[in-house]
Amino acid sequence: MFKKILIANRGEIASRIIRACRRLNIESVAVYSEADQQAPFVKEADHARLLGGPRVNESYLNAAKIIEIAKEEGAEAIHPGYGFLSESGPFARLCKEEGIVFIGPSASVIEAMGIKTKARKIMEEAGVPVVPGLSDAAVSVEDALSAAEQIGYPVMLKASAGGGGIGMQRVNDAAELEKAFSGNQKRAESFFGNGEMFVEKLVENARHIEIQVLADRHGNAVYLGERECSIQRRNQKVVEEAPSPFVDGELRRNMGESAIRAVKKLGYENAGTLEFLVDSEKNYYFLEMNTRLQVEHPVTEEVTGIDIVTEQIRIAYGEELSIRQKDVTIIGHSIEVRIYAEDPVTFYPSPGQITRLSFSEGPRIRHEMGIDGQSLVSPFYDPMLAKLIVTGADRYDAIMGLADALRAYKIEGIKTNIPLLQDIINHEAFKNGDMNTSFIDTHLKKQRKG
Amino acid sequence: MFKKILIANRGEIASRIIRACRRLNIESVAVYSEADQQAPFVKEADHARLLGGPRVNESYLNAAKIIEIAKEEGAEAIHPGYGFLSESGPFARLCKEEGIVFIGPSASVIEAMGIKTKARKIMEEAGVPVVPGLSDAAVSVEDALSAAEQIGYPVMLKASAGGGGIGMQRVNDAAELEKAFSGNQKRAESFFGNGEMFVEKLVENARHIEIQVLADRHGNAVYLGERECSIQRRNQKVVEEAPSPFVDGELRRNMGESAIRAVKKLGYENAGTLEFLVDSEKNYYFLEMNTRLQVEHPVTEEVTGIDIVTEQIRIAYGEELSIRQKDVTIIGHSIEVRIYAEDPVTFYPSPGQITRLSFSEGPRIRHEMGIDGQSLVSPFYDPMLAKLIVTGADRYDAIMGLADALRAYKIEGIKTNIPLLQDIINHEAFKNGDMNTSFIDTHLKKQRKG
Repeated sequence: MFKKILIANRGEIASRIIRACRRLNIESVAVYSEADQQAPFVKEADHARLLGGPRVNESYLNAAKIIEIAKEEGAEAIHPGYGFLSESGPFARLCKEEGIVFIGPSASVIEAMGIKTKARKIMEEAGVPVVPGLSDAAVSVEDALSAAEQIGYPVMLKASAGGGGIGMQRVNDAAELEKAFSGNQKRAESFFGNGEMFVEKLVENARHIEIQVLADRHGNAVYLGERECSIQRRNQKVVEEAPSPFVDGELRRNMGESAIRAVKKLGYENAGTLEFLVDSEKNYYFLEMNTRLQVEHPVTEEVTGIDIVTEQIRIAYGEELSIRQKDVTIIGHSIEVRIYAEDPVTFYPSPGQITRLSFSEGPRIRHEMGIDGQSLVSPFYDPMLAKLIVTGADRYDAIMGLADALRAYKIEGIKTNIPLLQDIINHEAFKNGDMNTSFIDTHLKKQRKG
Repeated sequence: MFKKILIANRGEIASRIIRACRRLNIESVAVYSEADQQAPFVKEADHARLLGGPRVNESYLNAAKIIEIAKEEGAEAIHPGYGFLSESGPFARLCKEEGIVFIGPSASVIEAMGIKTKARKIMEEAGVPVVPGLSDAAVSVEDALSAAEQIGYPVMLKASAGGGGIGMQRVNDAAELEKAFSGNQKRAESFFGNGEMFVEKLVENARHIEIQVLADRHGNAVYLGERECSIQRRNQKVVEEAPSPFVDGELRRNMGESAIRAVKKLGYENAGTLEFLVDSEKNYYFLEMNTRLQVEHPVTEEVTGIDIVTEQIRIAYGEELSIRQKDVTIIGHSIEVRIYAEDPVTFYPSPGQITRLSFSEGPRIRHEMGIDGQSLVSPFYDPMLAKLIVTGADRYDAIMGLADALRAYKIEGIKTNIPLLQDIINHEAFKNGDMNTSFIDTHLKKQRKG
């Protein structure tokens, strides 16, 4: 097994990966920015090295510096977490050239899945259903208009290289599309260095449901059931659960087998997630593949008993998957909420000094923490502070446990989205498992603004 | 389901039971002593009522006052936790007379199991193997000497009504027995109000392994596998795990079926635990039955996914067990360590003001906390502060995770046994699963005193 791994990330996911290294008796090297000098993950790692200034280009996106530190420290592998360099083909390629194992799939697979139009084509070839639309990229507003014309409004305008909801917008007619195009294209260009756009049919009132897969280089692949991630704000997930209250055994098997077909087609290695839109008739459409660990991986771990991060490391080392599909059983129900430093009404980030932090402990309550009671939340990064994961014998049990844990969760000094999370999980529609990606707009926006 | 439950206990187990109530949508009433006014469980409960002074007779053993508060508050049931009134037949009887459900078995079963000589007889009748010995009580040193003569030295001298290692001593010959008898008898009298003693053959180098059972009033009973509790100091458990590294499928089934025979014979209802000594040849001998929730119940919950406390409440309400034996599967490995406010070398309690508390969070790490960072640990109660439970895919994974979590566990202001716990889990014999009840004496005492 590896002796030393560098973790090219920060916050709760860096801590999560350090934990996994400890279980495998692997030394961990944290890298951090000037803004994160006091962060818990820096103290927790066996070794910690300053990357540079607080801006991401000076620190967590500084590939050359990260590789340099890995070599100085003698780290044999790099875990990229999520975000930052985790889906950078060039970074994965650089690691390989420098003789360092990138814990994730190959650069070419990352790149293929990173361009959404390309990913769509590959999935179609693998026999995986995709959202009706055109797989060709639109580089001008005219391309987009003509594509939308063929598909029929409403459509989703998306950035080919996009992610995290950036460069993405619903448009209902040609006028809206014309208005939306250049702004989204500019955002895509500045965020992803790629201004290619495309349009897809809007699947109305869809659920966002994703399939977690694990695959090794020896040809073994398993799917670990699904996660329901329909509750989103600004196209970003905020509550996730496993299993989905909407998915039955047949749909799970069909989606899982589609995912495995995709994995085989791609020669995929390591952990990955296929995101689907699922309509009310249980039709599912491939949306995108995330070629990395997901923020919401814990709910799958809780209901399967499988540690996805240690599996990632084992796979990257070349081990054969110890799990076969028949060994994967879903027991109980698990829900994750993302605690953000943000205004619960406007969703604006709310950085600042935390003056008090307390939360409850107990059975089937899991905390993934990026902060402690003295943290200064900087404005430089994603405002997610921590994740709270509560598991139960069934969905009701999990919701009741989560309601209790949220009531006890106190963060003072900054605004957080805890009130919004409480409104969501206490809402009748949520309790009934009746949700889609417009849940917050439909059920909570008016109420919160009114 | 019940609307309101009173919790006749304190510390981590009171918090644990409050959590379970929340999941079942039941209001909780905490009762507390003057020493516990600032304790976390008092703040966590929906309602909290002062019992009286810090001494247990003024507070947690004050049965009449507890019943009075339950009636005033309209609590329909009382959960006694462990210790205090949890194995008091008279208290269970009083509850019943007052129309309050005691969450546990009937008074007569508690009383039968409380007198160890009686329990031995019942188990023999049920066909459960017992430690070679005499089931008659010894009221004088002469009785004990003659019994020991028949059994053969070394023997264990025990209090019939004992528990928690009190009134219990190994004696190697008649001279030692004569010396030990009156002191232990006096301790038994003062602790349990019953000076009856008895002697049992000493099972040398035995493991302490126990079987968790759940039984309802409708004739259904299941065993939830075993817990290995061999690591003890002063006859009290300090590290517990599930499953036992020593127990194979056949032994588990045999012990489990013995336990179910005992449960059926007793007409037992609710959660209970049969403790056994297991020798190196895998012979097992009934030691005693605990007619209540055990401190170490979480390790069973972690590997079975069954919430024992909510099951207790459901059973007490009259529900039928939702689990059948075939539904009980053991997945992974879980280890609990008990964090005590005590000197790690002398084992003396170390009460005082906690000035700092911090610990790690993460996957498969469970904290059951009786304290917070501002707690004043009083000298009036058992010095257990918290429990740390770490689960893994296998025993190695759990040990590595536990080592990591213990390294991160910081309690300042008082002495704790954390260094002892670290010595135990880092010891080669522990890592090899090679342990018995004299583990600490054999492997750690010399080293720690030297």
